[in-house]
Amino acid sequence: MTQSKSTPVPHLQLGSCDYPEHVPQDRWVPYAQQQKELGLSYVRIAEFAWSRMEPRPGEYDWAWLDTALDTYHAAGMRVVLCTPTPTPPAWLIRAHPEILPMDAQGRVREFGARRQYDFASPVYREHSRRITRAMAERYGTHPAVAGWQTDNEFGCHNTARSYGGASAEAFPGWLERKYGTLDALNTAWGNVFWSMEYTDWAQIKPPNLTVAEPNPSHVLDFYRFASAMIAEFQAEQVAILRELSPGRFVTHNFMIFETGFDHYEVAKGLDFVTWDNYPLGMLEFFAPPGSGEDVKTHFARTGQPDLIAFNHDLYRGLLGGKNALGRNGAGTPNGPWVMEQQCGQVNWAPFNPLPADGAVQLWTAQAWAHGADVVSYFRWRAATMAQEVMHSGLLRHDETPDRGFTEVAELDTTQFPVGEVSAKVAVLHDYDSLWLYDEQKHSANLSYWTQTLTYYMALRGLGVDVDVIHADADLSGYAVVVAPAITLVSKERAAHWTAAVQAGAKLVCGPRTAFRTPGGETWADGQFGPLSALVGAKLLQYDSLRPTLSQKIDGDGGQFEAHAWAESYRTQDAETLYTYAGGPLDGQSAVIRNGGVTVIGAHSEKLVGSVLTGVLADADVSMTPLPDGVRLSRRAGRTLLQNWNPDAVTWNGRRLEPVSFTVLENGNG
Amino acid sequence: MTQSKSTPVPHLQLGSCDYPEHVPQDRWVPYAQQQKELGLSYVRIAEFAWSRMEPRPGEYDWAWLDTALDTYHAAGMRVVLCTPTPTPPAWLIRAHPEILPMDAQGRVREFGARRQYDFASPVYREHSRRITRAMAERYGTHPAVAGWQTDNEFGCHNTARSYGGASAEAFPGWLERKYGTLDALNTAWGNVFWSMEYTDWAQIKPPNLTVAEPNPSHVLDFYRFASAMIAEFQAEQVAILRELSPGRFVTHNFMIFETGFDHYEVAKGLDFVTWDNYPLGMLEFFAPPGSGEDVKTHFARTGQPDLIAFNHDLYRGLLGGKNALGRNGAGTPNGPWVMEQQCGQVNWAPFNPLPADGAVQLWTAQAWAHGADVVSYFRWRAATMAQEVMHSGLLRHDETPDRGFTEVAELDTTQFPVGEVSAKVAVLHDYDSLWLYDEQKHSANLSYWTQTLTYYMALRGLGVDVDVIHADADLSGYAVVVAPAITLVSKERAAHWTAAVQAGAKLVCGPRTAFRTPGGETWADGQFGPLSALVGAKLLQYDSLRPTLSQKIDGDGGQFEAHAWAESYRTQDAETLYTYAGGPLDGQSAVIRNGGVTVIGAHSEKLVGSVLTGVLADADVSMTPLPDGVRLSRRAGRTLLQNWNPDAVTWNGRRLEPVSFTVLENGNG
Amino acid sequence: MTQSKSTPVPHLQLGSCDYPEHVPQDRWVPYAQQQKELGLSYVRIAEFAWSRMEPRPGEYDWAWLDTALDTYHAAGMRVVLCTPTPTPPAWLIRAHPEILPMDAQGRVREFGARRQYDFASPVYREHSRRITRAMAERYGTHPAVAGWQTDNEFGCHNTARSYGGASAEAFPGWLERKYGTLDALNTAWGNVFWSMEYTDWAQIKPPNLTVAEPNPSHVLDFYRFASAMIAEFQAEQVAILRELSPGRFVTHNFMIFETGFDHYEVAKGLDFVTWDNYPLGMLEFFAPPGSGEDVKTHFARTGQPDLIAFNHDLYRGLLGGKNALGRNGAGTPNGPWVMEQQCGQVNWAPFNPLPADGAVQLWTAQAWAHGADVVSYFRWRAATMAQEVMHSGLLRHDETPDRGFTEVAELDTTQFPVGEVSAKVAVLHDYDSLWLYDEQKHSANLSYWTQTLTYYMALRGLGVDVDVIHADADLSGYAVVVAPAITLVSKERAAHWTAAVQAGAKLVCGPRTAFRTPGGETWADGQFGPLSALVGAKLLQYDSLRPTLSQKIDGDGGQFEAHAWAESYRTQDAETLYTYAGGPLDGQSAVIRNGGVTVIGAHSEKLVGSVLTGVLADADVSMTPLPDGVRLSRRAGRTLLQNWNPDAVTWNGRRLEPVSFTVLENGNG
Repeated sequence: MTQSKSTPVPHLQLGSCDYPEHVPQDRWVPYAQQQKELGLSYVRIAEFAWSRMEPRPGEYDWAWLDTALDTYHAAGMRVVLCTPTPTPPAWLIRAHPEILPMDAQGRVREFGARRQYDFASPVYREHSRRITRAMAERYGTHPAVAGWQTDNEFGCHNTARSYGGASAEAFPGWLERKYGTLDALNTAWGNVFWSMEYTDWAQIKPPNLTVAEPNPSHVLDFYRFASAMIAEFQAEQVAILRELSPGRFVTHNFMIFETGFDHYEVAKGLDFVTWDNYPLGMLEFFAPPGSGEDVKTHFARTGQPDLIAFNHDLYRGLLGGKNALGRNGAGTPNGPWVMEQQCGQVNWAPFNPLPADGAVQLWTAQAWAHGADVVSYFRWRAATMAQEVMHSGLLRHDETPDRGFTEVAELDTTQFPVGEVSAKVAVLHDYDSLWLYDEQKHSANLSYWTQTLTYYMALRGLGVDVDVIHADADLSGYAVVVAPAITLVSKERAAHWTAAVQAGAKLVCGPRTAFRTPGGETWADGQFGPLSALVGAKLLQYDSLRPTLSQKIDGDGGQFEAHAWAESYRTQDAETLYTYAGGPLDGQSAVIRNGGVTVIGAHSEKLVGSVLTGVLADADVSMTPLPDGVRLSRRAGRTLLQNWNPDAVTWNGRRLEPVSFTVLENGNG
Repeated sequence: MTQSKSTPVPHLQLGSCDYPEHVPQDRWVPYAQQQKELGLSYVRIAEFAWSRMEPRPGEYDWAWLDTALDTYHAAGMRVVLCTPTPTPPAWLIRAHPEILPMDAQGRVREFGARRQYDFASPVYREHSRRITRAMAERYGTHPAVAGWQTDNEFGCHNTARSYGGASAEAFPGWLERKYGTLDALNTAWGNVFWSMEYTDWAQIKPPNLTVAEPNPSHVLDFYRFASAMIAEFQAEQVAILRELSPGRFVTHNFMIFETGFDHYEVAKGLDFVTWDNYPLGMLEFFAPPGSGEDVKTHFARTGQPDLIAFNHDLYRGLLGGKNALGRNGAGTPNGPWVMEQQCGQVNWAPFNPLPADGAVQLWTAQAWAHGADVVSYFRWRAATMAQEVMHSGLLRHDETPDRGFTEVAELDTTQFPVGEVSAKVAVLHDYDSLWLYDEQKHSANLSYWTQTLTYYMALRGLGVDVDVIHADADLSGYAVVVAPAITLVSKERAAHWTAAVQAGAKLVCGPRTAFRTPGGETWADGQFGPLSALVGAKLLQYDSLRPTLSQKIDGDGGQFEAHAWAESYRTQDAETLYTYAGGPLDGQSAVIRNGGVTVIGAHSEKLVGSVLTGVLADADVSMTPLPDGVRLSRRAGRTLLQNWNPDAVTWNGRRLEPVSFTVLENGNG
Repeated sequence: MTQSKSTPVPHLQLGSCDYPEHVPQDRWVPYAQQQKELGLSYVRIAEFAWSRMEPRPGEYDWAWLDTALDTYHAAGMRVVLCTPTPTPPAWLIRAHPEILPMDAQGRVREFGARRQYDFASPVYREHSRRITRAMAERYGTHPAVAGWQTDNEFGCHNTARSYGGASAEAFPGWLERKYGTLDALNTAWGNVFWSMEYTDWAQIKPPNLTVAEPNPSHVLDFYRFASAMIAEFQAEQVAILRELSPGRFVTHNFMIFETGFDHYEVAKGLDFVTWDNYPLGMLEFFAPPGSGEDVKTHFARTGQPDLIAFNHDLYRGLLGGKNALGRNGAGTPNGPWVMEQQCGQVNWAPFNPLPADGAVQLWTAQAWAHGADVVSYFRWRAATMAQEVMHSGLLRHDETPDRGFTEVAELDTTQFPVGEVSAKVAVLHDYDSLWLYDEQKHSANLSYWTQTLTYYMALRGLGVDVDVIHADADLSGYAVVVAPAITLVSKERAAHWTAAVQAGAKLVCGPRTAFRTPGGETWADGQFGPLSALVGAKLLQYDSLRPTLSQKIDGDGGQFEAHAWAESYRTQDAETLYTYAGGPLDGQSAVIRNGGVTVIGAHSEKLVGSVLTGVLADADVSMTPLPDGVRLSRRAGRTLLQNWNPDAVTWNGRRLEPVSFTVLENGNG
């Protein structure tokens, strides 16, 4: 994209998501003015408004949107305009039912909510381009328009993949382009295994409804295909926006822990990344590793800080670079943004508690500290109709200010200067590994996220800042690189990591690292495949521990217990730091080290924390061990000291009020 | 219906459900005589016998049914004859598979059990009228026939709604008749929300298989449509029976806690209402609010008394009037009846314990005290074939008397005179509110029934008699009116309640009252919408409490704890009786009062009991606080004192034997 | 089959399952040699190799299989060759999609794993015969081929029954051949019950997707039909193998606790039976009666001994005879075999722990003691591709010996002479009873297996050897016959049992015995139907106990508690041994005896143990009460003393090491 013409933004800016089409037009002017008065700069609109832009096929109605944009502009608000493709209208779906996606159970997913389309549908692609072009032609250079959001929350409601229709038709061709010959595909997938060899591309279908579990290589390629369809779908919109809306950014709002597609691939054409941050709903669905109802209760009104922070760090790293003020022009917000920030109760979890007093401010401050340049609250006024009437906004149904409004009004954003987040530790992430890990778990309690978050949370508990980056990203500048669950290690990736270690980085790997090939098989020479020389060891055993079983571990750092997973090694060059005690792994190596590489074979929160402490110390990374719920995050020379606990905590001689933060100028003092 | 010619019935009568077609004909005479000897007056037959009445298309075989009716008549038994429409025969279904309903997953529901029809099917409607007419022509004036039951248990097995086929075809037309224009429908449903606006009636389908949750307004109208189809279906049968069977009653047997249709609408054309009372199966599926396995265990062999009583009171109030001896002719039983009364183990719960000694008598006595004129046991003899072989009857498989038979034989029904149930307290009920409540719960633990039963059980625990009536029913004569969960309050309903309060009634409302409009949106001026002036307050916050969170409440009546739900208010004219303490609602109003109206914002069994006690005292309603499992119910000048506990209880100086009752002549002494 | 020409095998032999098609050809010679060196005699191959035998329609490629067989032969290995029908190739399925089965939800089960065929498909039958003939023609007399395995694990992945397609088409014809007339079928099924009577054979479909539960008689016949389709399918292969491969055995590998078909019917044409023994995966899915997580944890690394033993005893008895060395020629292994023996972690349970040290040896020893002549480990080398990469083999992915390899290498099989297992106690088993029991459980916690294993485990805990045989099998020679859950008792079966009792056997029956007719109805004269005279009593009540309820039982043997189920009796000739105390069964008969017949009406592990102890003593059957996890099994004059506990146990003055066994020469000393 070209340079933005906007003026410098020295500190965090705020926004909200508004839906002029949901309210009478006489509310538009007062709403825009009230937003400005509250200190908001941005407003995101129109992502679900297709039926109002084009009420009937080819009949566009821009009048209302013209007025809305002019109204925001007059009030001094900058608009993020969205392509309305998450919600194809009824007339389009009924004219072209082949647009509808199919779920993994073989059921057509119907019109009546949102996201009712198959990314691979050529018909829908055409209409997506058409409506995008129509919008961009009309508003591409509108002065109110700061930038664009493509569609909305790709993958929401499990829509990343369609198991029939257009996707089923497109899948074989995608495979043919990838593999060239069926022999190559059959070999890559190991189709000899159960006579699954294909003799015609057209024989290949999505990997659902198979009698037993499908071939993981088949699944892996189907996931890659589905991901590619999303990337293609978005790229078509981006190209049109680039052409017709010069100087405006293009972004997308990604979701919490979404796994339906390779976010790195899909983010590639964007200027920056945004995501939608709902800390309370997230926690209801997702307990941190090793915890349960107690943690869900303790943080029920704030969210668990590390789950949120992980998403901030993940999305900050999605485009591969450090975020920094001005990439898109001096002072331009360049992400990551929080495009939708919870500011009251949500409506989509089994239980939807109110946020604690101060939580909206704390979430905003944390977003800043983890790199956000803009935080935009969802939504301006609570909807009075349809699916989301139980979801709060900054205004209540009756237009009075709700709790979040008050907290935003009282927040001083000048304490949040934009600038670099600078981390010396990188946690590696990779969607291929995630898919392989979770497709064949072997232990129902050990998922990719569980494994990854165990390491991430241990680092955060040590007060260390972390970048979450792609497993193939540039590793220069990192003192410590952590690969908690990168089970897919190609020869190239092994070489890349080896170079980083040779350059002085410390590498810490979790279990199942380098177990799988890019095709989804296992390395024929066993774990660690091409990484074996670097690790100086081979896999000995792995043990999938049922919840009622644990495994003792002994070492210089003390005694620990593994749960869910324990794997052991045959050391060659490596030395053994920890040893299993008792059970079938008795006396075998649990943690090994070979020069700059440490491998932790056991799943154990405390062991991971202990080993990481040692590695960080060796790497001269400064640590500040923190109590539960207290966290430190640093940006632009300031440190955000946070207390996420519902009670006051005394830490380092300082009283931290419940659900509060302090911005410190120098380090973590 | 015209006057019945039957003679006066001064006390409760008994009956049973019999299936002559299931046994050899030589059993018919002895069975009928044995029924009479046992003291039964009524026998219900033929609801599943279509394949015997019409073995092949158009070939009727009445001989066996002639004989059966004559046999019962000769024995002095009065027959409730049923239309056999719950079980269309194979020849009809295979000739017209379009009769079959579709489930919400899009699967055609198949022949092979019962209820395999779509209420909207024009083909099935025609056959329903045809078989009804054929039966009515033959038996409409048969002297054995006391009355008719339409079909059987509408909605059983989740059949109230069909999500495809005939219902899907009829739904758009029903909507067009309701709304006139698509603009009206789109506005009423808030279809702008996610571009769900329709441009053609034919675009509208049932609200299933949508990608995300469907629009609640769409759901609400689909439920109303499905309910209307049932009402129409039955009305066609009723019209034929009225024409051809003068002087006979027409009724239907409704089910426990069934929510698939608006029972008030469906009951409209009937003479009286009957229902099917299975206390033990009900309890396995449905724990009372705030309880769990302990209560299920304690009452495993009797059922929980208030769950049963609620259904009695609900069905007594379905036709809007007080039941009273003689509405259909002097001494005629005019309902409610229990058409099927459990009299031994059932077969359809995960666990099916034997009833306690005395339970069959206790159930019968309770039914009487809550207004039943007839109790009919299911079934005469245990079936030796097919789906229900594990279900007991009065006779065992081997024709010997089972436990229930003995209890019936020993029961003196002359202690149960028929007459009025006279309650000063009304609990309001409304299926639209139920549907809206449960479609968008916001707290997985707070359903409409949970909320409603909390208030009902508190009243029963205070020894107060209760009518359960429609939210728009005549409120005159009630000292206290309780609206536990009437979330839909139209302007007309608000005016109706306001008039009742102005006339002196005390009104008590639960949370979420008057939150929603008749269209299923929220009031744009927020809760309490058109009821705001009466309540003298507006909603402030609502908090959906996860099971591990609670919320303290303080007030003059003491300290309480809310769970599942807590909502607070901005008082205008209202005063605050209870205040929340701690958490995000700290200091906010929990219970408010404005003149005759009290609103309880928190879900708390004990708080509800305390507030209701105060309101009842203010209204001069006499209370008798009762221990767990001890209950009082009054009818026709007598009081039924019941002990539902498995152990003896001493109450008021009187020893109550386990699972027993006593009829007292004067009040509750 | 004709006499085998192999030489005598005086002791247990070993084997493994190998997949030459999965590895480069240069591995074949070393693998075969290594197998021989390890002491293996047998190798099973090719059950999933259709796509390599016939890469395209009619184009056979035998070269690789020729080489493989020659390689094994050269190494001195004997081959079990398999028909590859569990895995029809893609070209066949896509050319004939009508081969695919349909699940009970109406979904076509797709290509992409294995077992994607409907046993009733005439098209697939033709191809099954064709590929079988092609293999048999080529290898029927190959010197390496010791015998054949048909297909693989019939019923795996719930494939025994297809609810549509070919099965749906064939079902009516099968019924017509069975019943002759629709009147006969309607009567047998009790179709009058809900007007389910058919007027045309074509009206009858599989019993799925019915609105409510289907008729159990309909279900029972559908299960019998599906079972018959499997038997027919296999018989066609067996006939071809008999014709073209003289002197070779034909067998099939059955599964743990599989219930999808009547194993007695399907086994009929085989020479002997084999089964696939995965003790750890089995335990994750199947807790022994009355136990839960504690037992799953205690035996997590060994499996629970009685669950495994039951399957050994069941499969040993499948062909009706005692196993004995030489039935198929002097010294020929004649089964049962363990065709697939777990030898490391599996991959298909939620948790897949490593076996304890010694477990592989213990499993092998136990298999021998329960009659196995051959134990064949699954699999030779862990697969590096596709669905089973997480499953272990004797070799690791990297071809180094894994734990199981080491245990096998150290095992002395000469201590395991083949010979007879001689039991004086028979436990009766019958798939019709199983289907009826579980189709209409009445208590969610009481299944057929639960009931059967309660008795079996009590016997094993008394140190008694047991045969598990068909309910109609020859009972001569048994001192005690136990019928834990034979609910279907025909007149013929009643006569058969009566004769056995008259001949001196003691018969012990569990609850619900003789409740049902062969058609799936109940006996019209009630339980015990035709067995009533022998039992000398009739059923009085049955009580389905929810998990929080129990029922006390008193008798000379002490006090006990029933859970899940309690039934009582009206004694005629029988005497009462135990009586219920309290509750609705108070004072009623719980255990009754009439001469040689004892009936235990209550589900109670301890009561069953106590009553069986008395009966065994009366029958002069020697008992050795054993502590938990210690077991005795006898074969060929030797006794295998086993300790399955993870800790050492002192028993009878002898220290038993953890997870160990000892072979004793004389009795159980």
